[in-house]
Amino acid sequence: MGVLGARGKVGAEVCRAVAAADGVELVAEVDQGDPIGALVDSRAEVVVDFTHPDVVMDNLAFCIEHGIHAVVGTTGFDEVRLSALRDQLTSAPAVGVLIAPNFSIGAIVMMRFAAQAARFYESVEVVELHHPDKADAPSGTARRTAELIAAARREAGMSPPPDATSTGLEGARGADVDGIRVHSLRIRGLVAHQEVILGGVGETLTIRHDSMDRASFTPGVLTGVRQVAARPGLTVGLEHFLDLD
Amino acid sequence: MGVLGARGKVGAEVCRAVAAADGVELVAEVDQGDPIGALVDSRAEVVVDFTHPDVVMDNLAFCIEHGIHAVVGTTGFDEVRLSALRDQLTSAPAVGVLIAPNFSIGAIVMMRFAAQAARFYESVEVVELHHPDKADAPSGTARRTAELIAAARREAGMSPPPDATSTGLEGARGADVDGIRVHSLRIRGLVAHQEVILGGVGETLTIRHDSMDRASFTPGVLTGVRQVAARPGLTVGLEHFLDLD
Amino acid sequence: MGVLGARGKVGAEVCRAVAAADGVELVAEVDQGDPIGALVDSRAEVVVDFTHPDVVMDNLAFCIEHGIHAVVGTTGFDEVRLSALRDQLTSAPAVGVLIAPNFSIGAIVMMRFAAQAARFYESVEVVELHHPDKADAPSGTARRTAELIAAARREAGMSPPPDATSTGLEGARGADVDGIRVHSLRIRGLVAHQEVILGGVGETLTIRHDSMDRASFTPGVLTGVRQVAARPGLTVGLEHFLDLD
Amino acid sequence: MGVLGARGKVGAEVCRAVAAADGVELVAEVDQGDPIGALVDSRAEVVVDFTHPDVVMDNLAFCIEHGIHAVVGTTGFDEVRLSALRDQLTSAPAVGVLIAPNFSIGAIVMMRFAAQAARFYESVEVVELHHPDKADAPSGTARRTAELIAAARREAGMSPPPDATSTGLEGARGADVDGIRVHSLRIRGLVAHQEVILGGVGETLTIRHDSMDRASFTPGVLTGVRQVAARPGLTVGLEHFLDLD
Repeated sequence: MGVLGARGKVGAEVCRAVAAADGVELVAEVDQGDPIGALVDSRAEVVVDFTHPDVVMDNLAFCIEHGIHAVVGTTGFDEVRLSALRDQLTSAPAVGVLIAPNFSIGAIVMMRFAAQAARFYESVEVVELHHPDKADAPSGTARRTAELIAAARREAGMSPPPDATSTGLEGARGADVDGIRVHSLRIRGLVAHQEVILGGVGETLTIRHDSMDRASFTPGVLTGVRQVAARPGLTVGLEHFLDLD
Repeated sequence: MGVLGARGKVGAEVCRAVAAADGVELVAEVDQGDPIGALVDSRAEVVVDFTHPDVVMDNLAFCIEHGIHAVVGTTGFDEVRLSALRDQLTSAPAVGVLIAPNFSIGAIVMMRFAAQAARFYESVEVVELHHPDKADAPSGTARRTAELIAAARREAGMSPPPDATSTGLEGARGADVDGIRVHSLRIRGLVAHQEVILGGVGETLTIRHDSMDRASFTPGVLTGVRQVAARPGLTVGLEHFLDLD
Repeated sequence: MGVLGARGKVGAEVCRAVAAADGVELVAEVDQGDPIGALVDSRAEVVVDFTHPDVVMDNLAFCIEHGIHAVVGTTGFDEVRLSALRDQLTSAPAVGVLIAPNFSIGAIVMMRFAAQAARFYESVEVVELHHPDKADAPSGTARRTAELIAAARREAGMSPPPDATSTGLEGARGADVDGIRVHSLRIRGLVAHQEVILGGVGETLTIRHDSMDRASFTPGVLTGVRQVAARPGLTVGLEHFLDLD
Repeated sequence: MGVLGARGKVGAEVCRAVAAADGVELVAEVDQGDPIGALVDSRAEVVVDFTHPDVVMDNLAFCIEHGIHAVVGTTGFDEVRLSALRDQLTSAPAVGVLIAPNFSIGAIVMMRFAAQAARFYESVEVVELHHPDKADAPSGTARRTAELIAAARREAGMSPPPDATSTGLEGARGADVDGIRVHSLRIRGLVAHQEVILGGVGETLTIRHDSMDRASFTPGVLTGVRQVAARPGLTVGLEHFLDLD
């Protein structure tokens, strides 16, 4: 397999993980200024792309044209771009392309479990905890988790979670994301953590994900690399490769 | 609906929960010495049985014969008894019988999630925490959770969790259940709690269930009562009514 | 010992706890309409008062006059009342009176530890979790904890905790109590829980108190009862009986 | 200040931390083969020693002779060595020497709090969680914590924690350290974590320390460096510099 963006921070981490993994071999490391043709010369069957929104569409056009499967962490995909990719893939029906905004298996599993459990519990809130240098609150993952929970509750015809708060301080009850309360903590020493607490009469269920190291996204990339050839066409979201249903 | 064993500790809790619930009506409370025919006279459509292994088979024979669906928490079902029930149900194809060793939705969901997540994580251990008057360690739920995790790992072809322990004190690493480590804490003030911790490079996923009150099993009983009529035949395990797959 | 307010919810709990405890004997249960003289007749040496702000000052005047030590959980003490009590105690120098707004040893220890640890950690936030029928957010204990932490940080000359949040949703970062962030969760199934998370480079320290049962205040009352005779004069706050310094 | 063992893994981390800290200046980095006289030439007032048991006594003799205060993380101090140091310090009454087996402020504070809270709670157990490459179970810190808790309970005249376990699997209840149960988890993705859970009727108190990064010991070293000059004589244990009493 090959890596596009191999000298970037994320790409370099991917190269390290591939080198250490069983059953995959790194045959091409390509970055800005390198000829993309190296992918073909080295007979890469799968490529991982962590590059830039400006170049990723050209990269993918090249891969699809040459029958190379792609696992893509580069951002900036909107419906227009996805639709263009689907068009290109019709002429290469054997090629698989995975576009994923998040390669952390733990984060994906947490979101999936939270959404699945949502309909069994009257109450649910989300707490996310990060280092204090983070600019946004809540985190993107926490927002997305709350949206998925809210959708699951709507589908099950549930009322809003109970809350008798009538007096207090502004902000105490957190942010409101689609009717679900989300709390953001910023603490030195932490990396990236999230907890979903669900509760009903006499019991609670807590799902917690702790990410202690940036390298925690690499198992997700490897899962993508190992499966993308067997999943032709366009897939958006690593969750579809995890067989969680 | 009716309750068999209505004056027992668990049965009484079920009666209270039914009285407080929407969409179900308690029409018969039957216990030792009461005529079981009250179920028919009161036109109960569903019966909940928390009685005794000595009488439950007779109770169920009566229910099946009279077209009454049954949700059963009484213990003591082995393959012989289950097979006898299946036979009886062939002559009453519209009747549903649910036999469940555990009605805690939280415990069931935790076990299911732990088994689903097991194949994504190199390491996994189970910690269960109970009040210090409990006689067995580990708890039945913890053992069952470890067995389900071990089965999921086997199916995924995984090696045993890594463990470099070469020196230490006996018991420090917990009990071994099918190769999965299980730790039992006994602390005054606690009720019934369990945590499954899964870990891979740079991240962990924790699934925790806290049961603070014995009443926490009643939502599971109500779920059974509401669905059993729509699920004819014999079902073993409430998980099959939760649509977790 | 005797109990004033013995038939109230809290007083009744105290009576039960005293009956089960070693080394203390319940000799008088007094409530509205009962003659307070029963305390003298029964030779009570210590009295516990969980009554009402309207009657507690008269109760204490009676106790001090008759040389009976008092442990008081009744609310409504301001500086005027405390000062009046101090005056009365000058003429009964052997009598001890403990006024405590909070008898939960766990809550008191948590607040004390949080304040002690505050100066070692750059970051600190408070999370409190309660059942959804609670009217105020944050809880009184959480506010008090944050105030004590803020005071300890001021005394140590510390800057505010770091926080780079520049974009996000209103309320995500919780309420601001003296510069300390406090988050309130309301979840069915929970009782009363609080967590203080402190963090510095590469590490965090978490102090958590879980109160699962209202009876958790009784050990604090018994601690008061056992020690009040040895602590003459007025004491405000059970923490002074716990020798935490 | 100067660092002895400056090119070792720990010493290098200390050098980095000193460079980034306010109010301390790194004037000498000394390692094997370098002349120790550099400490005098550079006018170091305080030295940090993370070297080896074979050389540390000579290093300290040199420091004491030249009036340099010392903060020592090197291991191998027994009563004979400590006694020799005390002798040497009598002739240099202004010099302070701190010998500490553990510089993690979080670990020290956790142990202190656990010992302080022990006498208020009927039950207590210790759980430590580390990466799976660790050789010993339980960890040294967990053993030490359990010993301190056991000593505090003995001093308070308490009975052993209640435990009705009569059936189960070997190891489930953990290791026994002075009558206190200790559980060791080994999970990929974790670094070094410990939890002390104390419980009484209706409530629990949990003290948890999470160390996510080896650098977490440096604030403790800096605390030692800043205070050692004001604490002449020999001090064993950083806790004596933290004013926790």
